[in-house]
Amino acid sequence: MVYAIGLMSGTSLDGIDAALVEISGKDETTTVKLIDFLTAPFNNQTLNRIREALSLDQSDVEKICSLNIELGEKFAQAALDVCEKAGIALDELDFIGSHGQTLFHIPFAREPFYASTLQIGDPAVICEWTKTTVVSNFRERDMAVGGQGAPIVPYSEYVLYQKPNTTRLLQNIGGIGNVTVIPKSGKINEMVAFDTGPGNVIMNELCLHFFDQEYDKDGAYASQGNVSQALLKELMAHPYIQKTYPKTTGREDFGKQFTTILLEKWSLSPKDFIATATMFTAASIAQAVQPFIEGQTELIIGGGGSYNKTLIEMIQTELPDVHVMIQEDIGFSSEAKEAIAMAVLANQTLQHSSGNVPNATGAKKFVPLGSITYY
Amino acid sequence: MVYAIGLMSGTSLDGIDAALVEISGKDETTTVKLIDFLTAPFNNQTLNRIREALSLDQSDVEKICSLNIELGEKFAQAALDVCEKAGIALDELDFIGSHGQTLFHIPFAREPFYASTLQIGDPAVICEWTKTTVVSNFRERDMAVGGQGAPIVPYSEYVLYQKPNTTRLLQNIGGIGNVTVIPKSGKINEMVAFDTGPGNVIMNELCLHFFDQEYDKDGAYASQGNVSQALLKELMAHPYIQKTYPKTTGREDFGKQFTTILLEKWSLSPKDFIATATMFTAASIAQAVQPFIEGQTELIIGGGGSYNKTLIEMIQTELPDVHVMIQEDIGFSSEAKEAIAMAVLANQTLQHSSGNVPNATGAKKFVPLGSITYY
Repeated sequence: MVYAIGLMSGTSLDGIDAALVEISGKDETTTVKLIDFLTAPFNNQTLNRIREALSLDQSDVEKICSLNIELGEKFAQAALDVCEKAGIALDELDFIGSHGQTLFHIPFAREPFYASTLQIGDPAVICEWTKTTVVSNFRERDMAVGGQGAPIVPYSEYVLYQKPNTTRLLQNIGGIGNVTVIPKSGKINEMVAFDTGPGNVIMNELCLHFFDQEYDKDGAYASQGNVSQALLKELMAHPYIQKTYPKTTGREDFGKQFTTILLEKWSLSPKDFIATATMFTAASIAQAVQPFIEGQTELIIGGGGSYNKTLIEMIQTELPDVHVMIQEDIGFSSEAKEAIAMAVLANQTLQHSSGNVPNATGAKKFVPLGSITYY
Repeated sequence: MVYAIGLMSGTSLDGIDAALVEISGKDETTTVKLIDFLTAPFNNQTLNRIREALSLDQSDVEKICSLNIELGEKFAQAALDVCEKAGIALDELDFIGSHGQTLFHIPFAREPFYASTLQIGDPAVICEWTKTTVVSNFRERDMAVGGQGAPIVPYSEYVLYQKPNTTRLLQNIGGIGNVTVIPKSGKINEMVAFDTGPGNVIMNELCLHFFDQEYDKDGAYASQGNVSQALLKELMAHPYIQKTYPKTTGREDFGKQFTTILLEKWSLSPKDFIATATMFTAASIAQAVQPFIEGQTELIIGGGGSYNKTLIEMIQTELPDVHVMIQEDIGFSSEAKEAIAMAVLANQTLQHSSGNVPNATGAKKFVPLGSITYY
């Protein structure tokens, strides 16, 4: 049993999640216990720089070069902070798995662009600051064997969430929503995972636009609005929602630009708009998981969206035969889930074991993920 | 003794150098023998994409994301090609060290930018295509301990070139010029290395401008021109040339923009212009190495510039007391030198040994360089 840290920064730009875990074994025998967790928000300066680097108009090679190191330092500091919070000395730490900040993701080649993904947050800086070996850049290797490089958490979910005689649908709701289906059989070959569509990204953009709020706390605005069935119908007709898995999406599809067009086209009250966006996330999740509901089925929701009570209620209403829960209901930390997954993936890689789930990403084979920067 | 490959693509954008070597030992006991070598030129499409990605105006996050994978495939192909050329099967190959293509380098923090460096050419693709472990991204770790991340070849030069009772000045002339001083003592702590200034970059820009030629073959144009002492004096007054080591430079300082300004300001015949640019490289090298000349001293020139006879003659004239040679004179391949260095660095890293030279980069300590992507 050793201490490890998983570091994650998602598309919502909420900050860097740092999960300190005790971990042992590998593959099916992996056991992981969360010791401590924190989210280190980005300061406004860094946040603005990330937003520039994400933008086709404002990004350039110099900004990306610099931000890679800036974020490496932020990730390193988050790792140091979670150790201090937990009272763990650096020399007790065995390794760190760091996802980095995704700047861009092209799941399929489209002229003139190669299928590719770009995460930054220099592992050498994290390694040097923490005096600890770092595993990073998990997605590229899956893409090198024909996968989409996403979703990246299913292997960790497989290890942590299998339950006899129960189909478990693990729904993460970050900026984007993604689901992992862990079948009754517990066979990794029968797992499925894909992005369901938008998570909080549209709701958040609307909250920012209408109320200068980062997100809809507890789903309060949505609970006071009415769902526009006309807008919902149009949203559910989106090509991504209609497509079958494997599939993966991002802020490119449902982010600021998408929301701006909706705002120009539709005239709804702010709260109705937010209620409809919330229902869009709920309905797209329900439609996506429907084919996998069979016998005893649990939908376990994680990510920032799990704290949106209105959203959870909408999902339960859409899926009456499913036991809808949030991570905390089964003793797992919703907010720590993806960061924990990075520690699990790093643990696999350091033992030369695979960390992708081909059924989830479309990869041709199982491969270890990431590159190792030894201290 | 195992087979390894070193992959390098320099700032001149001449193509990908692939050196297949036999390598054994580590640190001072390292022995390396070059088995085969090739340079895989970029096709025009890839070359244009690299130039766009290098440009502040034309680069963006999507292009960089895609190019990282495109170049990964080109590097992988160069590795496969050098194996085929040598008749070595992939399963005889132990590891690959890949430098990647430098897109940007900021040696010192300058508001709002962090000291940083960005090399691309995805190691996961190289690993998967060659079925071989890859070590990549060598420069970041040196920068994480306060170094400038450049020059990167001195460790390899130290291992390969030490000679009793002789000071050896290893001068590489690529796009940029850099020198490594290997003192008589043979002590790594007494090594010095830094960029001397422009290598071929200005000459090449002038050849392209005046003659639509990529470079001045054998120094033929320069040999037919006269050096403008006035322009040379101005060039030698450049702040970078006047600065003392440690120092590092790049195309940012002496590339297209710099040459364009010279062309606007100075009215010289094409051949005089090229002769003066050639003398600028020679004189800046001579001035840079002067303080290290003591007793028996050899200046060993490598890189594309070593084939420029006019340049070599000018350097010898400037340094009458020094034995000026090219790599081939001592049985080394000039063109393969930097690629070989990448195999040496990878060999160090895989054995958890250091690969930087703090006196060369300004780093606070010796560290292993790069991240390992295990096959």
